[in-house]
Amino acid sequence: MIVDMPKLWTETIDAHRAAVRDAALDAMAALVAEHGLVALTMSQIAEKAGIGRATLYKYFPDAQAVLTAWHERQITAHLDQLAAVADQAAPAVVRLQAVLRTYAHIQHHSARHHGGELATLLHHGEHVDRVRRRLRDFVQSLIAEAAQDGDVRDDVAADELAAYCLHALTAAGGLSGQDAVHRLVAVTLAGLTPSALRR
Amino acid sequence: MIVDMPKLWTETIDAHRAAVRDAALDAMAALVAEHGLVALTMSQIAEKAGIGRATLYKYFPDAQAVLTAWHERQITAHLDQLAAVADQAAPAVVRLQAVLRTYAHIQHHSARHHGGELATLLHHGEHVDRVRRRLRDFVQSLIAEAAQDGDVRDDVAADELAAYCLHALTAAGGLSGQDAVHRLVAVTLAGLTPSALRR
Repeated sequence: MIVDMPKLWTETIDAHRAAVRDAALDAMAALVAEHGLVALTMSQIAEKAGIGRATLYKYFPDAQAVLTAWHERQITAHLDQLAAVADQAAPAVVRLQAVLRTYAHIQHHSARHHGGELATLLHHGEHVDRVRRRLRDFVQSLIAEAAQDGDVRDDVAADELAAYCLHALTAAGGLSGQDAVHRLVAVTLAGLTPSALRR
Repeated sequence: MIVDMPKLWTETIDAHRAAVRDAALDAMAALVAEHGLVALTMSQIAEKAGIGRATLYKYFPDAQAVLTAWHERQITAHLDQLAAVADQAAPAVVRLQAVLRTYAHIQHHSARHHGGELATLLHHGEHVDRVRRRLRDFVQSLIAEAAQDGDVRDDVAADELAAYCLHALTAAGGLSGQDAVHRLVAVTLAGLTPSALRR
């Protein structure tokens, strides 16, 4: 029993740390939704999270760091969701369609609940850049595969097409219903049509 | 001469006011580029603009208001640029192409110089919403006209297509050269192709 103690203790500490961190990020998201980004201060975040200011400073050096961590958490969750959708035995273009549809719905949903891609275009930390690159790489590899199958245009590089898709689909944040989101996905996919299939 | 004095005086005051206001907005843009949005305080903006804090407060109630005014100034300038491009005797689809190309270049350019569309997705003031709606309306009316000519798809409403275009073209901010910007415009326009011209 005694030999197990340190491990249990460590796990408890880890769980506590994760909970404090999550509370801070949730508080930040709520504050941004209420007041906009500029209003963010460490005191406000601590108060909203129900933790002491000194505690918050043990986790994050400043409000920008909380914002970065929150954004990283968001994109990581979205990546997991997209990876699950793409995990099927279907042609690349079908998996691409499923992924883009899911991404559009995430955009549509999060615009309503977290002020959307609020942080997407903020001053980037190294971590956020890395996780955004993973999202882009993921879509890019599906596009490259579909292009090899002849289902997506190959006259424009897959990385540029991935950037086009991800930006176009952020328009879902401003759309008013699921039908409009589906039309946006269809229009975005039409931009990927191989040139041989267009006049 | 004496009757003219008040007018001259008013003009001088107006010019001075505009200069102070512009200095504050420039300072804000520089601070955002350096530190990200969260760092913005009225003291920092005043110092960077080379004006007193009390003076700054005569123009703007808080940092969010400076941000909103800056964003409004940006979009208004862009609208003027786009309107100039569209002012020609050509079919709607040709004017639309010219406008979208110019918009993509603005995005590409401003990502390099002002941290891009940093403020685009921020908490919106009434004014910013209004001026963004003007941009969207402008593109929307060109799309509607081109759709009537049969040059743009009519199975999706013009306002949804306008949102798609404007979002897709923000990808230009992350592209590395003019050629890539042109390819992005071509891909985005391909999404607008009438369905009869696609398989």
